[in-house]
Amino acid sequence: MSLSALHQYRLQYKPVLPKHIADIDNITIEEGAKTQSAVDQKELSELFKHTYGLPICKITAGKNADIHRAIRCGFILSGGPAAGGHNVVAGLYDGLMKGNKENKLYGFRCGAGGILANDYIEITSELVDKHRNTGGFDLVGSGRTKIETEEQFATAFKHITALKLNAMVVVGGDDSNTNAALLAEYFAAHGSDCVFVGVPKTIDGDLKNQYIETSFGFDTACKTYSELIGNIQRDAISSRKYWHFIKVMGRSASHIALEAALETQPTYCIISEEVENKKMTVNQIASEIADIVVERHKKGLNFGVVLIPEGLVEFIPEVKALIKELNNLLAHKKEEYSKITEFSAQKAFVCENISEGCAVTFKNLPDNIAKQLLLDRDPHGNVNVSAIETESFVSGIVKAEIIKRGVKVPFTPVHHFFGYEGRCAFPSNFDSTYCYALGYTAFILLALKKTGQICCISGLQKPAEEWICGGVPLTIMMNMEQRNGEMKPVIKKALVETEGKPFKFYQSKRAQWASAEDFVFPGAIQYFGPSEVCDQPTKTLLLEQN
Amino acid sequence: MSLSALHQYRLQYKPVLPKHIADIDNITIEEGAKTQSAVDQKELSELFKHTYGLPICKITAGKNADIHRAIRCGFILSGGPAAGGHNVVAGLYDGLMKGNKENKLYGFRCGAGGILANDYIEITSELVDKHRNTGGFDLVGSGRTKIETEEQFATAFKHITALKLNAMVVVGGDDSNTNAALLAEYFAAHGSDCVFVGVPKTIDGDLKNQYIETSFGFDTACKTYSELIGNIQRDAISSRKYWHFIKVMGRSASHIALEAALETQPTYCIISEEVENKKMTVNQIASEIADIVVERHKKGLNFGVVLIPEGLVEFIPEVKALIKELNNLLAHKKEEYSKITEFSAQKAFVCENISEGCAVTFKNLPDNIAKQLLLDRDPHGNVNVSAIETESFVSGIVKAEIIKRGVKVPFTPVHHFFGYEGRCAFPSNFDSTYCYALGYTAFILLALKKTGQICCISGLQKPAEEWICGGVPLTIMMNMEQRNGEMKPVIKKALVETEGKPFKFYQSKRAQWASAEDFVFPGAIQYFGPSEVCDQPTKTLLLEQN
Repeated sequence: MSLSALHQYRLQYKPVLPKHIADIDNITIEEGAKTQSAVDQKELSELFKHTYGLPICKITAGKNADIHRAIRCGFILSGGPAAGGHNVVAGLYDGLMKGNKENKLYGFRCGAGGILANDYIEITSELVDKHRNTGGFDLVGSGRTKIETEEQFATAFKHITALKLNAMVVVGGDDSNTNAALLAEYFAAHGSDCVFVGVPKTIDGDLKNQYIETSFGFDTACKTYSELIGNIQRDAISSRKYWHFIKVMGRSASHIALEAALETQPTYCIISEEVENKKMTVNQIASEIADIVVERHKKGLNFGVVLIPEGLVEFIPEVKALIKELNNLLAHKKEEYSKITEFSAQKAFVCENISEGCAVTFKNLPDNIAKQLLLDRDPHGNVNVSAIETESFVSGIVKAEIIKRGVKVPFTPVHHFFGYEGRCAFPSNFDSTYCYALGYTAFILLALKKTGQICCISGLQKPAEEWICGGVPLTIMMNMEQRNGEMKPVIKKALVETEGKPFKFYQSKRAQWASAEDFVFPGAIQYFGPSEVCDQPTKTLLLEQN
Repeated sequence: MSLSALHQYRLQYKPVLPKHIADIDNITIEEGAKTQSAVDQKELSELFKHTYGLPICKITAGKNADIHRAIRCGFILSGGPAAGGHNVVAGLYDGLMKGNKENKLYGFRCGAGGILANDYIEITSELVDKHRNTGGFDLVGSGRTKIETEEQFATAFKHITALKLNAMVVVGGDDSNTNAALLAEYFAAHGSDCVFVGVPKTIDGDLKNQYIETSFGFDTACKTYSELIGNIQRDAISSRKYWHFIKVMGRSASHIALEAALETQPTYCIISEEVENKKMTVNQIASEIADIVVERHKKGLNFGVVLIPEGLVEFIPEVKALIKELNNLLAHKKEEYSKITEFSAQKAFVCENISEGCAVTFKNLPDNIAKQLLLDRDPHGNVNVSAIETESFVSGIVKAEIIKRGVKVPFTPVHHFFGYEGRCAFPSNFDSTYCYALGYTAFILLALKKTGQICCISGLQKPAEEWICGGVPLTIMMNMEQRNGEMKPVIKKALVETEGKPFKFYQSKRAQWASAEDFVFPGAIQYFGPSEVCDQPTKTLLLEQN
């Protein structure tokens, strides 16, 4: 394998450990009172008979001989990759080795699927050293399999028990951590001493609550997208003739779009949660952006940059209703519909067979988007929202609005989508350090036999030495939600709060950003050099925690 | 204006000047013999009566009082922006100030259009300091206007003379530097003492020859794209299920794709010039990539990364022929064609009206590409090649080939296009230093009254202190080419040479890269830190110069 120069240097980077966990011979865990989930206490306590309401685990100074107990630990990396996953493994491995030289670490390949397939590798110090401070999940690969059926739980139990593991770490997002809680419960219920600890990962930033300040990977992904957005903004003020419509990842929540907006000060940023809360229509969104295009034109500014969260269309109430009706229609009249080949006829057929309100919405959509709503369906017959070119959708409705107004305004849209570009970058110094501390905290929790916990680190706005590490029971973050027609326990996704400080800050600035040439150019992530450039957390985190 | 932390630090960066030009009181110019263009000497010497065959200007140690002469200098930034343009201005400005504190610098706004509109600003030290080592051309904006008609030359003469300019710097690509040569000739022919000096800019890297080792902006653009390609490659080996088809800028030449391939070692990289030289068909390209997809599948590697140069389709001989026939057909039978609205009927109409060979090519194209060839036409009625989704085209023909073979291979393509993302990044240390030296060299040439020259710096593979700066007459690089039906003098674009060292190196490695997981992850451009990470030129330059 050939390594780039940066790659070679990153392998040498030494993340700082928070002071209070650095000396494992002077730590123990102080447990708080029994906890409660915010809602659905009854259902959750039924489902998690052995692990519901566990106490919060505070790591404090003290002695605890368990830290040196013999551990055979497994782990999985689950879901979409996020920068820093390898450092979680490095922190976990280094902790295990500090605890007891005989300890073992095994990585199951390609997510939970590796547990079911009993496909694992032993993690050696050589392997760890080759992956320190690097991006990606390629050390063992990732996967999206969930352990759901009774049979799958039994298989997982069999394989984990056969490998004599007494600890498991699940690195993943809300779904994977829910799975970790279910595994913790299952193993406890079946008399296993294997403990399960979760680690909060997702570039989307929606695994966040009063205990989890941020999920790892969010920092690096946002900084990578912001680099590119800044570069495009500088291009916009140089070329002075393009309107760039930039979609950024984030299906469920708009945290990435909001953070990128805070870092780059674009002309406009759509926040899906605001669209939903205000029940904005397609026409209103178009009108709001068209107003800005026209106003800027009056000042000679025939350019701009608009940020769009990937999941937008499902947050526009009328489009959400339309998608629901389309899914129903095309499922029930599949045969009839499939005989129609021309788009105009398909459109007519659809409009005759859905509600009047939805038909109006459908007719108003740009043709290319209407076609995507009809064509790109997932295996369950649903609209494949991630395939919708939301960036073309938004520029399309803005263009239509400008034409409707009869104003003569030059408007040349250019489209971009940033997603895969930011998931596997070399983790920022923040994510490198945060992930290393998360992995090390996971080791402490599992050594001290705490199960059903997720690693939580607070004070992230401060220098890493001052961070406070601990564990919080996963059940505290859960509620019951309908999934495929059944009520299931899940960790609630954190959407952008329109009353929260990051959004409020954006709201207070956006009129100014829309009217001016006030772009900010963050530039590429820097790993060496001044701390103000290299070590800052996200603006979202700073606004939320200060 | 709010500045990011990196932005603030970059303003402080001090590019090193090549030693032999640093002390302006110990330089003079040694002129070589009269020069010749490689071809079309007769036509060019007719067109450039006053400036044809000028000598090469070598900057040597010595005395020349002209260095302190009073200068009123103008400049334009022309064409697509490229990282480092602001440092050309900084180097020029600093040189002018060293020469004579009374010297003046004026920037015409938005390219040559600013000369015609007499729209300029005075460049102050405050303005320069705000733009040092930053990306973009926003200091004065850029534009694509060329000065072509006799009336335009007269207007340019009037405005430049009225402003009492005795020097002009043209920062641009091959077309803009051709324009600089024509202006130098026009002014000389009309008795003006205003000298014209060109600076080689273009991210595409196609303004390159035995005198110009590289154009500025190429380094930063390639490194930005390589960062993203590396991130996507790391995603590919983590997720293990996507084939990424990545189009990179470069309409005329594949230098960017090739450099990005050298930096990242992708699964496959198409080089347009090879396709053209080997007269490859669409089917051959599809077949070559499909072979790799199938071979990798056998090893369990259902993923890969394919790089595609933006201009590919025009280099595939059969597609080039098809586009020519389509342009003719749709120009001559416009009315008849415009009445047909359904695609299947359009397709039939086209196939009846073009040659049999082209009809076969057309029928073989994926529908979305065939549609783009029919729909997206530029104002002259030509196919708008830059609007063709070449990345979808390539994945489409590969998919069709896999289906044709009847093999069962998972193949999930994901598409990307990187262009605007890399034109206005903060210039790499290389581009910052190179551009500063180019601007400073421009000052020396114009102070010493050398016109019709382009700044050339050689030895770029060595530390900046050792670079050798000078001027080369623009006419030496010219030939006559047909443009819009007329023979025009132009600087020859440098395509990728399939016998050149960079391509040969790629060729020697590509079978290995195609079969393995040998990706390289360059990471983001670094501005601080170890020199191996921060200061290296492109692999293309290193291979060509060493």
